[in-house]
Amino acid sequence: MSDVLELTRELIRRASVTPQDAGCQALLAARLAAAGFRIEHLRYGEVDNLWATHGQGGPVLFFLGHTDVVPSGPPGDWHSPPFEPSLRDGLLYGRGAADMKGSVAAFVLAAEQFVARHPHHAGTLGVLLTSDEEGVARDGVRRVAETFRARGERLDWCVVGEPSSAQRLGDLIRVGRRGSLSGHLHVRGIQGHVAYPEKALNPIHAFAPALAELAATRWDEGNADFPPTSFQVSNIAAGTGAGNVIPGHLDVVFNFRFSTESSADGLRERCEALLRRHGIAFDLRWELSGEPFLTRGGPLREQTIAAIETVCGISTECSTGGGTSDGRFIAPLGVDVVELGPVNATIHKVDECIAVDDLERLPRLYLELAERLLPHA
Amino acid sequence: MSDVLELTRELIRRASVTPQDAGCQALLAARLAAAGFRIEHLRYGEVDNLWATHGQGGPVLFFLGHTDVVPSGPPGDWHSPPFEPSLRDGLLYGRGAADMKGSVAAFVLAAEQFVARHPHHAGTLGVLLTSDEEGVARDGVRRVAETFRARGERLDWCVVGEPSSAQRLGDLIRVGRRGSLSGHLHVRGIQGHVAYPEKALNPIHAFAPALAELAATRWDEGNADFPPTSFQVSNIAAGTGAGNVIPGHLDVVFNFRFSTESSADGLRERCEALLRRHGIAFDLRWELSGEPFLTRGGPLREQTIAAIETVCGISTECSTGGGTSDGRFIAPLGVDVVELGPVNATIHKVDECIAVDDLERLPRLYLELAERLLPHA
Repeated sequence: MSDVLELTRELIRRASVTPQDAGCQALLAARLAAAGFRIEHLRYGEVDNLWATHGQGGPVLFFLGHTDVVPSGPPGDWHSPPFEPSLRDGLLYGRGAADMKGSVAAFVLAAEQFVARHPHHAGTLGVLLTSDEEGVARDGVRRVAETFRARGERLDWCVVGEPSSAQRLGDLIRVGRRGSLSGHLHVRGIQGHVAYPEKALNPIHAFAPALAELAATRWDEGNADFPPTSFQVSNIAAGTGAGNVIPGHLDVVFNFRFSTESSADGLRERCEALLRRHGIAFDLRWELSGEPFLTRGGPLREQTIAAIETVCGISTECSTGGGTSDGRFIAPLGVDVVELGPVNATIHKVDECIAVDDLERLPRLYLELAERLLPHA
Repeated sequence: MSDVLELTRELIRRASVTPQDAGCQALLAARLAAAGFRIEHLRYGEVDNLWATHGQGGPVLFFLGHTDVVPSGPPGDWHSPPFEPSLRDGLLYGRGAADMKGSVAAFVLAAEQFVARHPHHAGTLGVLLTSDEEGVARDGVRRVAETFRARGERLDWCVVGEPSSAQRLGDLIRVGRRGSLSGHLHVRGIQGHVAYPEKALNPIHAFAPALAELAATRWDEGNADFPPTSFQVSNIAAGTGAGNVIPGHLDVVFNFRFSTESSADGLRERCEALLRRHGIAFDLRWELSGEPFLTRGGPLREQTIAAIETVCGISTECSTGGGTSDGRFIAPLGVDVVELGPVNATIHKVDECIAVDDLERLPRLYLELAERLLPHA
């Protein structure tokens, strides 16, 4: 059994549901320390974060990953227990196999191999791990990035191990992410009896034309790197349960995934202006998860494409689609970010798995990338 | 203390929250039996209904009322305990004082007095009571009406004791009611991640333009007797609670209060056609509470107006507004229906009350009406 398969299995056995780390970082820190890495534990609230570095000065390349996983759901829905790694037909099953304990095991092994091969490499190679990526993501990389910013930590290139691949390992990398902006809207009406609508103000009716317009609005056209900004209502609720009562208020939660053609401030303004134009009485609380970011070009993006070509023999697609990742906290530090990891077909689902063949190529891919980016004799 | 005040107090002390009768009907049946009425107990499910009659053949005039009341809410919110009648400043307080134990006490006393004065009156005088008017109204007058229809019971005129008055006793009577038609709409979408809207179908967005159109539609213009049909959404709900999930379905409850210019079938068809035109995938369950009814003219309506003029010295307004009443089950039997009762300002509220002066005129009002409608020597 290969090292990466064995290490991934050990990580899967640790049931590290967010924000639990369940000992994953201690295991990895011990390995990296043994390999000569400096180890820094950054614990915020209930969240374990690990910052391991080797070498000195710039350029600084680091791998970013998370040891936490989403809940398994009812274990009985799985063909094998979610926290007992199981090998069947060339696939390794278990919660976190693809998102992202496989990548974490792979880049930790790649880091060990890199410093073993090149003990006197130039620059710095780092590994950054959190156990709060799948949850509220408050005490994870968000806080680490604040710390890095405060102490002026030099960082150049970040490789996130998120499962970016679509069909085959390396066929797609993320070179940016859309921004995410949520609104919690409270529409105020006046409660009353449905038989006397003239004495009430139905907040559902008041909001209806605004909702139709919000849903139909083309917020921007996107650009070469980003799809158009999208608006989605995720939750809507009004009513007392009784069929004869006009409710007094309506609550709506919505989310923008936005391109670099829009800004959070601009979307907020346009949305509020639209609601005011419809004469709606409302309170609106905004929540900005992250501004969009983009690694347009440069050595990280170029060498990632080249490393995939070398190891996987395919040309990759550069995308900015999909959900958010912890890259959103790193990019604002002025760091180039790419995301490269295994196929994401089964993530967050029952019977999450990774192809053993892909898993075993991942350390070579990350090692190839480190060797291309960090000067060494 | 007057008889009607005393009897109303006795009824208030019986905490007959729907569908409980709490002994009200037994008390009233005993009185009516003593006065020579034939007593029939019609119990359906958990619901007590009472049908008391005096005399024979037509014309048949009967008073319709309910002994059940809506819950009091927290008794501590009341200035005096809701089920302990309390006299303050010329007002009698207690749950049911106005809706409608005062009317029930009044028409039972009027019935006693009428047969005492006119033991050999022509036609039939009846009293019909239920304890399921404020609730689902399934085993109350709805079932009684089915029984009456099945046995071909002759009925001509029905006076419902609902609190019809607006400012002063007798200033308004109901001569009809709008129909009430509810829809339980289930809009089908496809669940997904907000980051990938192209892989999902947001049922909130799909429904938004239809909702806006439904809320803006003028269903009819009403007529001389009815206000225009109104449409109100009472409940709307979609969402998993998570802010990053596009929900898979949306549930909406709405209600039409409709005039005689529209029919239940017509509204159903127009509503469904509108939803189809918007390309919505939906299931829709309809619930018809009652078709609209109207007592256009005739002796009942005319003599009610005349009796109010005589007893209260005011001219009354004939209205079809407001909520539904049990009259909706009686009218389809071919019976003329009017609703006449005390001021409704405090019904269903804390500190429900009736003016003692109004309460004491009510038996005279109902007696006057009976004397005008039933021939007697």
